[in-house]
Amino acid sequence: MTRSRRLVDLTWPEVHEAAAAGVGVIVPVGSTEQHGHHLPLDTDVVLASALADAVAEAAEMVVAPAIAYGYRSRPLSGGGETFPGTVSLSGRTLIGLVEEVLGGLIRSGFRRLVVLNWHYENSNFIYESAYLARQATTADARIMVVEAAFAELSEAVMDVLFADVEFRGWDVEHAAVLETSLMLHLRPDRVLFDRAVDDASARHPPYDVVPAPDDFIPASGTLWKATRSSAEKGATAWNEITTRVRAMVIAELA
Amino acid sequence: MTRSRRLVDLTWPEVHEAAAAGVGVIVPVGSTEQHGHHLPLDTDVVLASALADAVAEAAEMVVAPAIAYGYRSRPLSGGGETFPGTVSLSGRTLIGLVEEVLGGLIRSGFRRLVVLNWHYENSNFIYESAYLARQATTADARIMVVEAAFAELSEAVMDVLFADVEFRGWDVEHAAVLETSLMLHLRPDRVLFDRAVDDASARHPPYDVVPAPDDFIPASGTLWKATRSSAEKGATAWNEITTRVRAMVIAELA
Amino acid sequence: MTRSRRLVDLTWPEVHEAAAAGVGVIVPVGSTEQHGHHLPLDTDVVLASALADAVAEAAEMVVAPAIAYGYRSRPLSGGGETFPGTVSLSGRTLIGLVEEVLGGLIRSGFRRLVVLNWHYENSNFIYESAYLARQATTADARIMVVEAAFAELSEAVMDVLFADVEFRGWDVEHAAVLETSLMLHLRPDRVLFDRAVDDASARHPPYDVVPAPDDFIPASGTLWKATRSSAEKGATAWNEITTRVRAMVIAELA
Amino acid sequence: MTRSRRLVDLTWPEVHEAAAAGVGVIVPVGSTEQHGHHLPLDTDVVLASALADAVAEAAEMVVAPAIAYGYRSRPLSGGGETFPGTVSLSGRTLIGLVEEVLGGLIRSGFRRLVVLNWHYENSNFIYESAYLARQATTADARIMVVEAAFAELSEAVMDVLFADVEFRGWDVEHAAVLETSLMLHLRPDRVLFDRAVDDASARHPPYDVVPAPDDFIPASGTLWKATRSSAEKGATAWNEITTRVRAMVIAELA
Amino acid sequence: MTRSRRLVDLTWPEVHEAAAAGVGVIVPVGSTEQHGHHLPLDTDVVLASALADAVAEAAEMVVAPAIAYGYRSRPLSGGGETFPGTVSLSGRTLIGLVEEVLGGLIRSGFRRLVVLNWHYENSNFIYESAYLARQATTADARIMVVEAAFAELSEAVMDVLFADVEFRGWDVEHAAVLETSLMLHLRPDRVLFDRAVDDASARHPPYDVVPAPDDFIPASGTLWKATRSSAEKGATAWNEITTRVRAMVIAELA
Amino acid sequence: MTRSRRLVDLTWPEVHEAAAAGVGVIVPVGSTEQHGHHLPLDTDVVLASALADAVAEAAEMVVAPAIAYGYRSRPLSGGGETFPGTVSLSGRTLIGLVEEVLGGLIRSGFRRLVVLNWHYENSNFIYESAYLARQATTADARIMVVEAAFAELSEAVMDVLFADVEFRGWDVEHAAVLETSLMLHLRPDRVLFDRAVDDASARHPPYDVVPAPDDFIPASGTLWKATRSSAEKGATAWNEITTRVRAMVIAELA
Repeated sequence: MTRSRRLVDLTWPEVHEAAAAGVGVIVPVGSTEQHGHHLPLDTDVVLASALADAVAEAAEMVVAPAIAYGYRSRPLSGGGETFPGTVSLSGRTLIGLVEEVLGGLIRSGFRRLVVLNWHYENSNFIYESAYLARQATTADARIMVVEAAFAELSEAVMDVLFADVEFRGWDVEHAAVLETSLMLHLRPDRVLFDRAVDDASARHPPYDVVPAPDDFIPASGTLWKATRSSAEKGATAWNEITTRVRAMVIAELA
Repeated sequence: MTRSRRLVDLTWPEVHEAAAAGVGVIVPVGSTEQHGHHLPLDTDVVLASALADAVAEAAEMVVAPAIAYGYRSRPLSGGGETFPGTVSLSGRTLIGLVEEVLGGLIRSGFRRLVVLNWHYENSNFIYESAYLARQATTADARIMVVEAAFAELSEAVMDVLFADVEFRGWDVEHAAVLETSLMLHLRPDRVLFDRAVDDASARHPPYDVVPAPDDFIPASGTLWKATRSSAEKGATAWNEITTRVRAMVIAELA
Repeated sequence: MTRSRRLVDLTWPEVHEAAAAGVGVIVPVGSTEQHGHHLPLDTDVVLASALADAVAEAAEMVVAPAIAYGYRSRPLSGGGETFPGTVSLSGRTLIGLVEEVLGGLIRSGFRRLVVLNWHYENSNFIYESAYLARQATTADARIMVVEAAFAELSEAVMDVLFADVEFRGWDVEHAAVLETSLMLHLRPDRVLFDRAVDDASARHPPYDVVPAPDDFIPASGTLWKATRSSAEKGATAWNEITTRVRAMVIAELA
Repeated sequence: MTRSRRLVDLTWPEVHEAAAAGVGVIVPVGSTEQHGHHLPLDTDVVLASALADAVAEAAEMVVAPAIAYGYRSRPLSGGGETFPGTVSLSGRTLIGLVEEVLGGLIRSGFRRLVVLNWHYENSNFIYESAYLARQATTADARIMVVEAAFAELSEAVMDVLFADVEFRGWDVEHAAVLETSLMLHLRPDRVLFDRAVDDASARHPPYDVVPAPDDFIPASGTLWKATRSSAEKGATAWNEITTRVRAMVIAELA
Repeated sequence: MTRSRRLVDLTWPEVHEAAAAGVGVIVPVGSTEQHGHHLPLDTDVVLASALADAVAEAAEMVVAPAIAYGYRSRPLSGGGETFPGTVSLSGRTLIGLVEEVLGGLIRSGFRRLVVLNWHYENSNFIYESAYLARQATTADARIMVVEAAFAELSEAVMDVLFADVEFRGWDVEHAAVLETSLMLHLRPDRVLFDRAVDDASARHPPYDVVPAPDDFIPASGTLWKATRSSAEKGATAWNEITTRVRAMVIAELA
Repeated sequence: MTRSRRLVDLTWPEVHEAAAAGVGVIVPVGSTEQHGHHLPLDTDVVLASALADAVAEAAEMVVAPAIAYGYRSRPLSGGGETFPGTVSLSGRTLIGLVEEVLGGLIRSGFRRLVVLNWHYENSNFIYESAYLARQATTADARIMVVEAAFAELSEAVMDVLFADVEFRGWDVEHAAVLETSLMLHLRPDRVLFDRAVDDASARHPPYDVVPAPDDFIPASGTLWKATRSSAEKGATAWNEITTRVRAMVIAELA
């Protein structure tokens, strides 16, 4: 049992002892990205970190500093790079960043590692990081990569979340019902709910275009109906998400 | 109207003329990856290329040489890197490769470009390529990135494909019903259908682990029930896929 | 006047407005690095961030998410990479990371940027980041790089800090009098002062050796006499450091 | 004896078996590059691939997918990057691409590997790939690098090829007598021989200049007298080239 | 005892023998950088090399070819990149260059290596090179990194050097008293002393700004009072610097 | 007319003036590579530099610091990387190094640049450097790339050089007749002629193998008959080489 669940709260002898005792480590990965008129830029970091905190205790793990800058926002799932406040990394740099953080944690003695992501656009890049970090070590480390923590909710929870609004896909849940509800539940102080809007791009095709046509991007940066969010919805979804990810991590990296 | 729909059939004056006349170009992206006991290693290249051919005519485009090596196979959607015959690129190299091919095509005069992918693991990397290639030019080029050409089939087609077998998700359709049926329809000479097996990994979680536990990977490399495939199913699905992607490309890059 | 001094608290329209109004932005840069038996791993992040907060108000700036992982710890100024909990980046990755963060902030509209560092080993790498980010833009942005925020204290403050203990140089002030005192002043809840030790390496030459000889590294990871620290010393030094850096930023980027 | 000489025709169990039985693998390397008014852009790929096919059978090898994009065309040996249809890679990307393909083939079990090049400009880059791939493995693999498959023809064959036209060096044989004759022999359907021209740059110095002066580059992209080509010449040269390379590969990698 | 102290004077059998006998190797690192109106561009190379020569004999070492191009000149310690004649490398390239030179020397058999730097801006980059080179080998090599050979002079020597002029810090000793005096002592033929000027930037703050304000940079490129230099001062300082570095190297890498 | 033909002898105002007056610059590129039992490791640097000196005067140019470390020695043209004293760069690092040196020279105002190479293995890499450096600037700079300064000697000179020994190709002229003779002519003090041997690899095929078979490499590192060298031969060849390269540079970059 470590003195704190936050890695950085510890001193190095405590890290040494924890790692030797088999404690694992979670690296939350988010983004600094526009989330409409009502959510803060670090929404993805807040959610990834809160999820990590929720998992750490039960899974005998600590939480490393979050990756606060993620891969470029894509227009159809995050509004894209043209919004002020969206500050992103190239694919190459993100790959190297997460690879080296994992490498450092392995060198610190950790053998059970989780990369816990809450920013769709980081997918594949962070898998590559895990692949490269593992390839570079002879240590018997296992790295779990959770790219989409929320993508499988039960019908019951979906019914609650989307009782009064259509579900149009996870990609447009950016700054919309799920994320806003979760933030209202977890960090109501960070939400300017009175500024929330309902929005949608004029078009939302199953492909991308570079540069993105204007009608791919809702003017507000909110990709769907944020006003249909509530703290209650958030609590319901959060309960399932944390329960599920917690169980996954425990089952996989016991 | 170009003399051929294959870019490399042309001579440079023909390319010059075509590009000047507004002809577009498609870059198929595949992989060299195990596809079970019955499908060839270039299944993804065959399908990406056939789709490109099917689109090119109607969309006034030519088809560039396919990217024959893709990003590392992931255990849960392709069996992973441990199968002989799977020959993959790192994320960094794939990003650079596709970026520079797009850059060369833009320098050749093309302004309507499509990256047409048939290998799930290439996602995000090839978007990054398009982003970087576009950022590096002052030309008024538009690059369409189709990462998952098959991911939205109609209920009618799904009913045909999965009439006699459960649909367990696109990720396990690797070397399974859809791909085998398409190959039986398009290139029956390339399929060893008598060797096809039904298989599934013991576990198929919604996350990855590096290194992959053995029970993530079916021994055969076929991720689901390949024997339920048929040329008829393939024809039905192919008809819809080509129709749909053709329409998308025309609508977007007219 | 922005609603918050933390960039990520804002929404994108607020960032847009702030940047357009000439608000600047500070990027604190720290490390995740052992700091002896008594200080947390994020000591450098805490100090860089606190300094940024202290400057932001007066300088009409906001504070971007801190760079939480820095360049490799060097044995003579941080104990080196062999301590568990020290999680570092390569020079190349750190250069790219800070370069791209600065690039994203410039693209967001900021024209007055500060890189505020509290980890000696980041020097030169973060200058290179600033150089590259500036070279890549045509925007009229100015980037101030503060590599050593604390290196020039007045004689009066030095007399307070080192009244009862010799000053042996800033490089051994790692987890020693200055840093411990500042943490006791700013975040006493994060300090395990009863575990603080006085230590020193057997040798401390003006050059480095790779791999580091054992006698370059004090066993405790504390490079000098941490027990001579106090909140009062910290308050005195902090007052001067913040005053000085605040004045520098205002004078330079007015 | 594999079922096919094309690697990608095989299934992974067949690759496994082949590699275990000592079968080797050839990677043809070409380019997508202008070849005058009469030859297709993939001339180098066609020739590298045909040569690989001609070697594979006798040398107990299979042929991997060709590298279809090569290093930048150089003005004096390929016309340079200004011709539409020439689509090239940077040196860095080509190095990584071929390195990783070789790495994947070694991981697949192959221990006898040949890089068979037909594009002068790839020289040294592909050697570096082989060097790096070999350095990265502990497997007992041997990689043969054939950078100039055609550069040593017998006097008898040279007399046939250049019976009615001067031999001005291999560098200007781009889209000229040798390549056109080989294509007329191997793939007459791909040659627009009636469009063939005789051409030469006004100057052809033994050094390069960047950017290339106009008089380094013949307007047609044909670097010498293409009209002096014939299928008969091609047959004669091809016979010697294939015989020679086949013997080399067998002798070296038996 | 090698036939020459310059590595490149030797033949490979001599290198083999020397390395086997435990001879060490020094890599001088300098820059090609403006040094005012009176000193040559290779001042840093001359001084790093002369120091290496002075150390080599006593330490049983040879001197490898100097790194003649260093990291970008910084305005406050070298005048910056805007002076003609300053020809610099990026951080990434310098890291790789020195890393690979060290790797080659280790592969040649050397186990005692010194990186001897005379260009402030190379700091940290060359440490990273040493770190990476050492990490990549299993050989029992020790690499000493001397980033600031001159930074600790005795009070007696300082009194001589700065008898008639204030000491304003090592960063402004660029092309000023110390460097000019050393060159007058070592290579008077390379100094145009009659062109030496006294100069100083209007401002010299303890931070950097990119792009550098004009008043950070003295128009002459001489950062302090060069006219106060003399061969005698140079002899005094050189004696101490060589004695000191020689002793360090011998003590550390005996 | 500059005060010196060596760039680094100049001060920055002299560089400024020279570049403004249209003076050009030559970058000699060599290697640090074994040259048998009788020639020094810097033979390629000596020859590239001497050639640059011989050209500079007549072509109104200055000579920049030589690139002293080149691309990896290849077994068939330099003996390979296994000889002690051979210290080489990777392709990627060499590309970046020469690219950035050229970039710095262009930024210094030079518009006529020559890369003068005397190390076969640098070919293509240094062309890539020139390509990239030119692509990165808007300045009207011309970069001449001389990859093989000696490859075209007159029959008369060949008759002298190879009067008493067969000419077996330039690749085996490594440390053999041409290079030894040139060194005997230019720098007899650097040659241990009494140690010169005649040697040849047991095999010398027109392709490479990695790792190189032992019989590709002569034990002495001399690739052909060094004893047949003389200062007279060297003088004859040098006269032609310098005359020829001088004329080329003047004609091209007048």
